[in-house]
Amino acid sequence: MKSVTCTAPVNIAVIKYWGKADEKLIIPLNDSLSVTLNSDELRAKTTITLSEDFTRDQIWLNGKEESIDNPRLQSCLAEIRKRAEAEHKSLPKGCVQIVSENNFPTAAGLASSAAGYACLVFALSKLYAVSGDISAVARQGSGSACRSVLGGFVRWVAGTEPSGADSRAVQVAPAAHWPDLRCLILVVSHDRKKVASTSGMQRTVQTSDLMRARLEHSVPARLAAITDAILRRDFAAFAELTMRDSNQLHAVCQDTYPPVRYMNDVSHALVDTVHEYNARRGGVRACYTFDAGPNACVYLPEAEVAPFLAVVAAVCPPPVLADWVTGRPVQLPPLPEGEVWEQLFPGGVQSVIHTTVGDGPRLLEAAE
Amino acid sequence: MKSVTCTAPVNIAVIKYWGKADEKLIIPLNDSLSVTLNSDELRAKTTITLSEDFTRDQIWLNGKEESIDNPRLQSCLAEIRKRAEAEHKSLPKGCVQIVSENNFPTAAGLASSAAGYACLVFALSKLYAVSGDISAVARQGSGSACRSVLGGFVRWVAGTEPSGADSRAVQVAPAAHWPDLRCLILVVSHDRKKVASTSGMQRTVQTSDLMRARLEHSVPARLAAITDAILRRDFAAFAELTMRDSNQLHAVCQDTYPPVRYMNDVSHALVDTVHEYNARRGGVRACYTFDAGPNACVYLPEAEVAPFLAVVAAVCPPPVLADWVTGRPVQLPPLPEGEVWEQLFPGGVQSVIHTTVGDGPRLLEAAE
Repeated sequence: MKSVTCTAPVNIAVIKYWGKADEKLIIPLNDSLSVTLNSDELRAKTTITLSEDFTRDQIWLNGKEESIDNPRLQSCLAEIRKRAEAEHKSLPKGCVQIVSENNFPTAAGLASSAAGYACLVFALSKLYAVSGDISAVARQGSGSACRSVLGGFVRWVAGTEPSGADSRAVQVAPAAHWPDLRCLILVVSHDRKKVASTSGMQRTVQTSDLMRARLEHSVPARLAAITDAILRRDFAAFAELTMRDSNQLHAVCQDTYPPVRYMNDVSHALVDTVHEYNARRGGVRACYTFDAGPNACVYLPEAEVAPFLAVVAAVCPPPVLADWVTGRPVQLPPLPEGEVWEQLFPGGVQSVIHTTVGDGPRLLEAAE
Repeated sequence: MKSVTCTAPVNIAVIKYWGKADEKLIIPLNDSLSVTLNSDELRAKTTITLSEDFTRDQIWLNGKEESIDNPRLQSCLAEIRKRAEAEHKSLPKGCVQIVSENNFPTAAGLASSAAGYACLVFALSKLYAVSGDISAVARQGSGSACRSVLGGFVRWVAGTEPSGADSRAVQVAPAAHWPDLRCLILVVSHDRKKVASTSGMQRTVQTSDLMRARLEHSVPARLAAITDAILRRDFAAFAELTMRDSNQLHAVCQDTYPPVRYMNDVSHALVDTVHEYNARRGGVRACYTFDAGPNACVYLPEAEVAPFLAVVAAVCPPPVLADWVTGRPVQLPPLPEGEVWEQLFPGGVQSVIHTTVGDGPRLLEAAE
């Protein structure tokens, strides 16, 4: 009997992944680039126990047993076991019990599968003592999981091999490279069903006339420019590229037939608020990015966190603007004297998660 | 002393105009195609009086005197007078008083300037007895006014001459060509300021990476296909092209930096409702298009009007779903038995304008 417990972080892309070249192997149409968030705040945690007493593999997600026959789960299990056997010329006997949980609610609209699959594959690699890159394995669980196996600023290279062997993550810079950078996740109320990102991106690839221009022109230029901006810690350049790419992702969704929509009126009000905040401050001090849901992820320097949140509270005045991690009301400074912001969506922002750039998965415990 | 009174219709584009090649002459980057609506329901009405007693030109819009020095207004006045002088070797002495009104509220979000400038230029052409095409003159007042000088299905050809002389409207088919076609304008509540279309399209041309793909690929193919669909009265083809082009207009607005947004959550709910309506009916029975505002314009065959409105009333149940022209509550049939639609935005649709395809401007009265 052997057991490992690991955590893995959430990541939020600044140059977005949207569209697969291979649906089964999850090879993307374009490289993407993300920021790994600190797993002190947001994380998946997975314990895997291997025992000869177990007669079949089993998995529990957030306390509920799920089918182990999920094809993506099976791909990850099979791939790690194959590598273990190749590396050690034998495979430990027995089956696994996997217990995984996220410390953030699904309602937060965060890509829980990214942290979840990164954690699963990282834990399996520790359990079976597999060395080498595991991002290409995590990728087969959930595309964006590929980027959660590394910390800091991470590029998922689409690769060129039909097998997907070179479709993997590389670190552009470690978390410690940009200590001043903060991330606020503004959790927006929503009760509309959303189109799952897998089917949404399929529909975009099949029907959007504009998608090719994104893939051929916008993304390659932005990847080069944002990598450079990150290495130079040039916040204004990083921020503008981040906003433009988020806008474009939602533009190709809108150009999809029938259109796919993730942002709502509150999301768009937050977009306008960020642009207005920057205009009033006379420079780019904050930027937004939106994934397949209405929540805003705002990157900004540490000094801007409190004044920016005060503006959010004025525009979307909350009954309680709660810090999601502590559950406590966020203490906000007053707006600068004489500064007025139009109240747009009372209750539109339900809570705030405040975090930093973070490291990759961690092994918490291993026991024989 | 001489006086003319004319009306001109509203038009709603199905292949959209967005972006100018020449800001001053209002030459568009692409051809567009629209449907002229019946002026029994929606119209601008203009009376122009020419008198030697008037010492200066003056204009009243909807009962309020406006500056005659508006450069676009001056362009139209100067151009018609120049043509009159060339055609008749002299110009009647005196100045004009222009009294113009729309019979629809600005809040309806309809392009009042299109009907208004078409009416002004048409009335001036009657007053000064100018012959020949006047669409290129109306175009200099407001781009889309170019298409309101003709009835039925109208294409605004961008043209190639730097002077704009060949940037004018041509009729694809007259109103009587498709008697079964109906138009519903669903007036959506909105109180947010919108970005004026002139500055919105400038910003798109300057900043959207995706705009070129629209201009080079999407628009030319769609213009050919929708012209063919109109000539064959193929509603399904017409409808799908109309929806795709509306979606793409709002996609390039979303790809603009900072993004430009005209549709709101109610607009998007109406989009989803049309797609769901078509899915449940097993074919394309209705289509939507949105201009620079949140109101939906829905084209559909006459037989679909009542059942479609019943669905709108279920999704956006109105306190009163009023016919805008008569002011009376719209009488709706019950939904088919067993058919359930989720209520999404109570009060989201404030009123409905129900109209048909219509003819071009009319001379109502001329007096010496």
